[in-house]
Amino acid sequence: MPRLAADTVTTPSTPPTAGAERALRLRFARVRARTAALAAPLTPEDAQVQSMPEASPAKWHLAHTTWFFVRFVLDEAPASMPAGWDTLFNSYYVGAGERHARHARGLVSRPTLAEVLAWREAVDLRVQARLDAGAFEPAALDALLLGTHHEEQHQELLLTDIKHALWCNPLQPAYARDDSEAHDLAPPPESTADDAGGAAWLPRDECIVEIGAAPWPGPAAAFAYDNETPRHRTLVPAHAIARRPASNGDYAAFIADGGYRTPALWLSDGWDAVQREGWQRPLYWHADGTREFTLAGWRERDPRAAVRHLSCYEADAFARWADARLPTEAEWEASHAALAGTGQAWEWTASAYAPYPGFRALPGTLGEYNGKFMSGQMVLRGGSCATPPGHARASYRNFFPPQARWQFSGLRLAKDID
Amino acid sequence: MPRLAADTVTTPSTPPTAGAERALRLRFARVRARTAALAAPLTPEDAQVQSMPEASPAKWHLAHTTWFFVRFVLDEAPASMPAGWDTLFNSYYVGAGERHARHARGLVSRPTLAEVLAWREAVDLRVQARLDAGAFEPAALDALLLGTHHEEQHQELLLTDIKHALWCNPLQPAYARDDSEAHDLAPPPESTADDAGGAAWLPRDECIVEIGAAPWPGPAAAFAYDNETPRHRTLVPAHAIARRPASNGDYAAFIADGGYRTPALWLSDGWDAVQREGWQRPLYWHADGTREFTLAGWRERDPRAAVRHLSCYEADAFARWADARLPTEAEWEASHAALAGTGQAWEWTASAYAPYPGFRALPGTLGEYNGKFMSGQMVLRGGSCATPPGHARASYRNFFPPQARWQFSGLRLAKDID
Amino acid sequence: MPRLAADTVTTPSTPPTAGAERALRLRFARVRARTAALAAPLTPEDAQVQSMPEASPAKWHLAHTTWFFVRFVLDEAPASMPAGWDTLFNSYYVGAGERHARHARGLVSRPTLAEVLAWREAVDLRVQARLDAGAFEPAALDALLLGTHHEEQHQELLLTDIKHALWCNPLQPAYARDDSEAHDLAPPPESTADDAGGAAWLPRDECIVEIGAAPWPGPAAAFAYDNETPRHRTLVPAHAIARRPASNGDYAAFIADGGYRTPALWLSDGWDAVQREGWQRPLYWHADGTREFTLAGWRERDPRAAVRHLSCYEADAFARWADARLPTEAEWEASHAALAGTGQAWEWTASAYAPYPGFRALPGTLGEYNGKFMSGQMVLRGGSCATPPGHARASYRNFFPPQARWQFSGLRLAKDID
Amino acid sequence: MPRLAADTVTTPSTPPTAGAERALRLRFARVRARTAALAAPLTPEDAQVQSMPEASPAKWHLAHTTWFFVRFVLDEAPASMPAGWDTLFNSYYVGAGERHARHARGLVSRPTLAEVLAWREAVDLRVQARLDAGAFEPAALDALLLGTHHEEQHQELLLTDIKHALWCNPLQPAYARDDSEAHDLAPPPESTADDAGGAAWLPRDECIVEIGAAPWPGPAAAFAYDNETPRHRTLVPAHAIARRPASNGDYAAFIADGGYRTPALWLSDGWDAVQREGWQRPLYWHADGTREFTLAGWRERDPRAAVRHLSCYEADAFARWADARLPTEAEWEASHAALAGTGQAWEWTASAYAPYPGFRALPGTLGEYNGKFMSGQMVLRGGSCATPPGHARASYRNFFPPQARWQFSGLRLAKDID
Repeated sequence: MPRLAADTVTTPSTPPTAGAERALRLRFARVRARTAALAAPLTPEDAQVQSMPEASPAKWHLAHTTWFFVRFVLDEAPASMPAGWDTLFNSYYVGAGERHARHARGLVSRPTLAEVLAWREAVDLRVQARLDAGAFEPAALDALLLGTHHEEQHQELLLTDIKHALWCNPLQPAYARDDSEAHDLAPPPESTADDAGGAAWLPRDECIVEIGAAPWPGPAAAFAYDNETPRHRTLVPAHAIARRPASNGDYAAFIADGGYRTPALWLSDGWDAVQREGWQRPLYWHADGTREFTLAGWRERDPRAAVRHLSCYEADAFARWADARLPTEAEWEASHAALAGTGQAWEWTASAYAPYPGFRALPGTLGEYNGKFMSGQMVLRGGSCATPPGHARASYRNFFPPQARWQFSGLRLAKDID
Repeated sequence: MPRLAADTVTTPSTPPTAGAERALRLRFARVRARTAALAAPLTPEDAQVQSMPEASPAKWHLAHTTWFFVRFVLDEAPASMPAGWDTLFNSYYVGAGERHARHARGLVSRPTLAEVLAWREAVDLRVQARLDAGAFEPAALDALLLGTHHEEQHQELLLTDIKHALWCNPLQPAYARDDSEAHDLAPPPESTADDAGGAAWLPRDECIVEIGAAPWPGPAAAFAYDNETPRHRTLVPAHAIARRPASNGDYAAFIADGGYRTPALWLSDGWDAVQREGWQRPLYWHADGTREFTLAGWRERDPRAAVRHLSCYEADAFARWADARLPTEAEWEASHAALAGTGQAWEWTASAYAPYPGFRALPGTLGEYNGKFMSGQMVLRGGSCATPPGHARASYRNFFPPQARWQFSGLRLAKDID
Repeated sequence: MPRLAADTVTTPSTPPTAGAERALRLRFARVRARTAALAAPLTPEDAQVQSMPEASPAKWHLAHTTWFFVRFVLDEAPASMPAGWDTLFNSYYVGAGERHARHARGLVSRPTLAEVLAWREAVDLRVQARLDAGAFEPAALDALLLGTHHEEQHQELLLTDIKHALWCNPLQPAYARDDSEAHDLAPPPESTADDAGGAAWLPRDECIVEIGAAPWPGPAAAFAYDNETPRHRTLVPAHAIARRPASNGDYAAFIADGGYRTPALWLSDGWDAVQREGWQRPLYWHADGTREFTLAGWRERDPRAAVRHLSCYEADAFARWADARLPTEAEWEASHAALAGTGQAWEWTASAYAPYPGFRALPGTLGEYNGKFMSGQMVLRGGSCATPPGHARASYRNFFPPQARWQFSGLRLAKDID
Repeated sequence: MPRLAADTVTTPSTPPTAGAERALRLRFARVRARTAALAAPLTPEDAQVQSMPEASPAKWHLAHTTWFFVRFVLDEAPASMPAGWDTLFNSYYVGAGERHARHARGLVSRPTLAEVLAWREAVDLRVQARLDAGAFEPAALDALLLGTHHEEQHQELLLTDIKHALWCNPLQPAYARDDSEAHDLAPPPESTADDAGGAAWLPRDECIVEIGAAPWPGPAAAFAYDNETPRHRTLVPAHAIARRPASNGDYAAFIADGGYRTPALWLSDGWDAVQREGWQRPLYWHADGTREFTLAGWRERDPRAAVRHLSCYEADAFARWADARLPTEAEWEASHAALAGTGQAWEWTASAYAPYPGFRALPGTLGEYNGKFMSGQMVLRGGSCATPPGHARASYRNFFPPQARWQFSGLRLAKDID
């Protein structure tokens, strides 16, 4: 039975142990500090920019994640904040009151970045003081844990959005002050020698698999978002899935073979996007064919690294060109333990983002977290170079509209077998 | 092995029997005559109107269905048509050459309706002459059968689109000259007495079911579109599905209960649509609360008839209000034999339109028929008052974007059970 | 003192003579018959098409001009028309009640063309019967005369709009069944021999001229629209105006010299339009450099004929390229008697459409005829191949937004002199 | 003869006197310092915001005015600036090379505000050093003087744009740190006692007046923009012009009388804007009927102060309601010496922004300064509370599109007299 600090919850729950509280306290401190570190390279001007309606200013990410703790953990009234902030920093929770227009976040010059950072510190102190005093109800502790996972999601979004904002500047400056701050520099790729050895594909006969996670919060349940639940059985057809993700080199071959000029390879909506947007290569690839824009500025592209910044339409067209297809999310999850390269780029799947059988959203306002977006989006699995360490898991379901490509998104091939 | 009259097909196939050819000839004549009958109530002006980019003029439907036979059955060169017609009446087949801009179909005043009708007759004679001469290859006969099913789809679209066109006219005239021509007048509803008897829900335990159809064309295969294939196993979770579709009366209760003013009931995209479009009731319902616009003009609404002209967002919100959900298409197909009311309105499902495991599109240009639209759309099952008799079947997959509601679309509830 | 049949008019006026009434009756009959003749080449489908929001279907022109007589001359209540027609065929007269959405005129398939033509005849009979009976008040007779001029404007608009509608059809069919019906075939051009003789420019020293027309209706006043009034004095600076309009040959030289690729020649808004719309030549010119689309279809262009279908931006850029400028409307009117070629194409002037000093709109609803459009438009002078004979006059002020070019519009050069 | 530092200028001109150079040096220092002072209340975040495509970030104004001196006075090559800055800070001078997209100025977070301010100081030093060394050619000194007037225009735009940016923030913070920094607080209004005494209108018989300015640069010519030249004769009809501008109290009466709900008062484009934008009062007026948003935040409105932040459509509708009209710019200039209240708000005129007879743009790239915008805009005369002292003059022609109302714009009435 869920026991989040939400409006409709009344069931008492077992008090957490002292050890669990200590771990939560450490986790809270670590996550909050990491967010501040991600903001450190930014000027106040950088943190102000909203490059498109789908993106948010870095300052807004910093403020919204703090608002989440104020409203759902400290459970403070809106009046505890400076006037207007409750509206400004509510993202999409209709149950929590009015929201500022999403596309106009970049117009809000005040509060300043410095004021937002000071607010973060003040809220952190209040949370810590309540933890010290053992004053949180179990439900509030659940919300606190959720808030740290929520903030980790925004850590990735902050990097995703600031990369786009800086790329929109004709000067295309770097976010990172040195390479240690550039999360999207290509890691040393794993060996792909086994590709030639015939083990590039992982075959699987038709079978029933269990995917998903047990509902959280619940007895002995590990953290998971509601959209990952419940754990359930599904039938996976006979198929093979690629051991490694598609690489920059693979995708360059698709381009060289005229992929962007061959309508038969594309979904109808995808071909429309190619023509309307003038797509000729992944976002952030240079027309010179060798470089890509990274958080450290322009760099040589590594042909062995996972291809990134593809829309689902591009991933799907590439797969068709390769005489393959995208995997379903069940296929992906069934084989995840054997997949290499995961963690370089989110992998588009063939699965529309939809509720699992038996899905129930979290109660109350937090029920808006995931469920209401189950329309018009596709599931991505895995994780990316910008995902906080330890944030994702095998059952994790990321989701974006099929035309989006400013996030760190690539693909892995799958195919039917007899 | 498919044997359509398509560019890449070389495999010979077994000649059809004389009986099959006779049946096909009768079917062709019957379908073509029915289309002409549907156009009979239209003035040349009616047949010219395109009310929105998603709809087509009736004249275009009449011409496009004929073009299909010219290009894919008679296999005539574009030059066999008057100059420009090949481009004007190609819908979306990139493999068949240039296409006129879809949104501008309503600007094409010439050829006139009379010229299009005359062309239909001329093409019919050529097809019949070839049939008489036994001059069609087997692959052409397959394409001919496909063409008749294609034309039946356009029969429904013609009614769907002309209803919208006439409704856009402030005078809101009727299509039908008498009730016998009005396909969307409410039929005598079936008894719903068993609702009270406790048999309103059809429960089913978790099981593996087979859905879909065997690939056509193929040995002994009945006709089916490629998107229905292959027949395959899938796991259906424990659930119950409603015996009858949601009715006008059910939906009126949702409205009366503030359904259109309660954001918590809606998907995020759905709530955006409600606000952007000002939706307050199904399309074609009168603000007076009692009437609906039909092909015969304004009529009293029957509260027992299936509700129609809902978007998927409205269907989904209604289901949530009813503490239920939409069925998946597998759940629907598994129970279809026991479902009442089907055939009044297409039923939105919870399933995004996606390829079945092992899906293969038809070869060549006709492969564009279905597969390239498997993005951004939801599956509808069943059939509607405007569907030609005998056209649909249990495995039939209709599809529309979730915001569309000018088609004859309603819903049936489902729910999880333990 | 105006005495139109308008809501606020109460002053009696002198009864017109029997001779004036006879002339008016003949004029009415002639104008109405000419409109019907212009519609004769049109199919019902042609008459239905609205190619863009700024244009109207031919059927709408036929109906609206009739509505004008019903409401402003016969002074019949809206209920005298079939339900809804009063709203459908009111163009922009807020004082006369609700109006249908302008951009959606092409969706109104009913009433049909035949019904509109029958209505025209019925209204004509009612007007004639009232004339026979001497039953019109003087104010109604004034409105009747205005109505005939109004209809002549729509005669030109009908040709303007149908030319565009047919051009939007990829088949680009002809309006005219033979050349006698094609109003825009180039006439035998007048001699331009005097160009070489040094008399191409008409110089004029600074002077005060009288332009405009005396207010109509009024004692002994000839018909004029309110926007032409009052006749007034204005100071014209020293200048010269070209004796003949710019020709197709002149304009082709501008194109050949890179006119459409040289931003320094263009107004800022004009250059934006060139880039946004991809303009490379006048509307209706073929890319082959030699042909133009006419009401009789594609024809060879006559280099000596006046250039047509230019926006004001193009006319202005051409003038700058020629080291000249567009004339003001006062300069044009001051010299009009000596200008050659006028009547081939409306001539863009440098004058924004604005009220003359002392301007007063007609009283009542008919005051909406002209005055409320005095914003965002430029004045054109002269007349065109599509203007009804005798319709225009020296003081006539046509007006269009500067980006419009589907009308029959060209230019004449002017320049400053010391 | 113009002698600006422009590409096509070769004619030598008389060296300026030492006294003139000293005055220019003082003026340069004073203008530049004033701009920096206007920026002082801004945070880096404030200076980053672009609230709409028509507005610019404060940081951009600070950079663009500096760019002007670099390119047109110092005549430095683009390479003298950091890479990309030449493109970023060129506003609209096609002759000076590529320009960044205007609507995307708010996305340019780097260079930072601090970097732009440092650049300003460096450029100032270079200009002053060249002045000290007497190293400027006469043409460069002319461009330097023009640059200071250009910068004064941007001082007003900076205030205009930052007011809008802060107003778009739901918190609606103040720009000014104290009232001394708030340029738009109502000044003590002048007496309007003579209104009751019958001297509210200044009548004038028909006459020829001289308006405009002598071309600058030229022998003994005072500074004026090219759009004010040449000085020329024009005929002004008999009319009267109001001694004082329309006040907040006057405009409130128009609102109270239903001005925003009466289509007959409005130009057609104006009424469209009222409905499309939902206008019900001037921009920055509070719905409470008593307050207005200022650079110091929300303040009580003074009914005697000039009304501000009207579009031309609103000014025109108000004038029609008052049985009057807007003055032409010639009428305004003819009487300017006797007009009270000028300097509170720019006054919309009835004159479209067009070249004067004999107008010649400045040579070379600086010819783009004014002339190419002579389309689609209306002239405003006078000056506003945000105009730098001494910047405007009797012949000064400001211009905006008729729908714009974020600038400090009001009106003065005029009327025809016999």
